[in-house]
Amino acid sequence: MLQVGTVEDEPCLRADAARNRARLLEAAARLIAEHGAAGVTMEAVAAAARVGKGTVFRRFGDRTGLLMALLDHSSKKLQADFLGGPPPLGPGAPPLERLRAFGVAVLYRSAEQLDLQLAAQPDPTRKFAHPSVDALTTHVCVLLRQITPDADCELLARTLMGYLDPALIHHLTKQRGMSLERLEIGWADLVARLTRTEPPR
Amino acid sequence: MLQVGTVEDEPCLRADAARNRARLLEAAARLIAEHGAAGVTMEAVAAAARVGKGTVFRRFGDRTGLLMALLDHSSKKLQADFLGGPPPLGPGAPPLERLRAFGVAVLYRSAEQLDLQLAAQPDPTRKFAHPSVDALTTHVCVLLRQITPDADCELLARTLMGYLDPALIHHLTKQRGMSLERLEIGWADLVARLTRTEPPR
Repeated sequence: MLQVGTVEDEPCLRADAARNRARLLEAAARLIAEHGAAGVTMEAVAAAARVGKGTVFRRFGDRTGLLMALLDHSSKKLQADFLGGPPPLGPGAPPLERLRAFGVAVLYRSAEQLDLQLAAQPDPTRKFAHPSVDALTTHVCVLLRQITPDADCELLARTLMGYLDPALIHHLTKQRGMSLERLEIGWADLVARLTRTEPPR
Repeated sequence: MLQVGTVEDEPCLRADAARNRARLLEAAARLIAEHGAAGVTMEAVAAAARVGKGTVFRRFGDRTGLLMALLDHSSKKLQADFLGGPPPLGPGAPPLERLRAFGVAVLYRSAEQLDLQLAAQPDPTRKFAHPSVDALTTHVCVLLRQITPDADCELLARTLMGYLDPALIHHLTKQRGMSLERLEIGWADLVARLTRTEPPR
C-alpha cells in the first residue's frame, strides 16, 4: 500500500489544507489497495474521505491529476530515501551498491503500485520528460558517473531506467509469468554488465 | 519515407484487392511524409488514393488500424531484411555484427517514422506484447543466445529493445537535442557492455 503523509512536499500549504490533502490521498490509496486503480473515481475518493466532490476537484483537477499526485507523493518518498535515507540506498554505501539497491527498491515499489503506475502513465511523448522519471534518471546518472566516468552515462542511465519501466514490469510479470526474483537478479546482472564489473556473489 | 508494396504480406488477397490496399497505404505514407501523422485522416487517404471513404473504413476499420497497418508493413520489410537480406543485418555475418547492424537499422527507421510510431503506440499494457515488437525482441534474443549463451538473454533482449523505444528516441533527439550519431555510438557501446565484448574500432 502507498505511504501517504510521510513526506512534507508542500511546506507552504496551510496546515488544515495540508491535512485535507493528505486525507484525500490516503483515501485514494486505500481505494486502490482495495479495488485497484479502476476503483479510484473523484466521487469515491470524496465519499471515502467524507468531503464534498467539489473539494476533490478543486484540489486535483481531474482523476489523472489525482493519480499523478499519488504517484508524485510515493516518488518523493523514494527520492528522500535515496538522497538522505540509510545505506545502501542512501549515501554512505559505494555507488555500485547504491545503484543495485536503487533498482531493487524501484522494482518492488512498481510491482506494488503497478495498477496505479499504469493508469497514471503519461502519453509516450511526455513519458520520459516527466519530473519524477527525470529525478530518478538523474540519480542513476550521478551514480554511474562515479562508477564509470568515461561512459556516456546519460544514455546508460536511460537504459537502466528502461529496465524499470512499469509497463515492462507488468508485461514480464503478468503476461510472461516471470518472478520478481528473476527481475531482481536480472537487475544486478544488468548493472554489472553496464558498468563492466562483477555481479555480487 | 515508408516503403509500401515491397513485401507481400497477404498472399491470399485477390490481386485487385491487394493493389487497392497497397495504393491506400502508399497514399497514407505520402500524407505522413508531407504533413506528419496528424495529416492522416480516413478522408484524406480516400481523397489521395481516389477511392470512396467507405473503402478505407472497410479495409482498415479506423485511423489507428490504418496507422498500425502502415507500421506492420514497414516492420515486415525490416523483418525480411534481418531474416533473409544481405549481411551484416541478414544471415552470414557473425551474430555480434548482426546485432550491431540491427540496432542501427531500427534506430534510423524509427527516426524516419517517429511521428507515425508515436501516433500508433498501443497503450502501456499492450505495448510489449504487440506482435511486431515481439518479432524484433525474439530476433535480438536469438542473436544474444549465440553471443552469450549463459546470460538471461530474454531480459537482455528487452533491455536492448528499450533503448530502441520510439518514445525514448523522440525524447532524446527532440527534447534533449541529442544527435542520431550519438545514439548510434551509444548502441554499439551498449551491445559491447551487455555482451561483455569490446566495442568496434
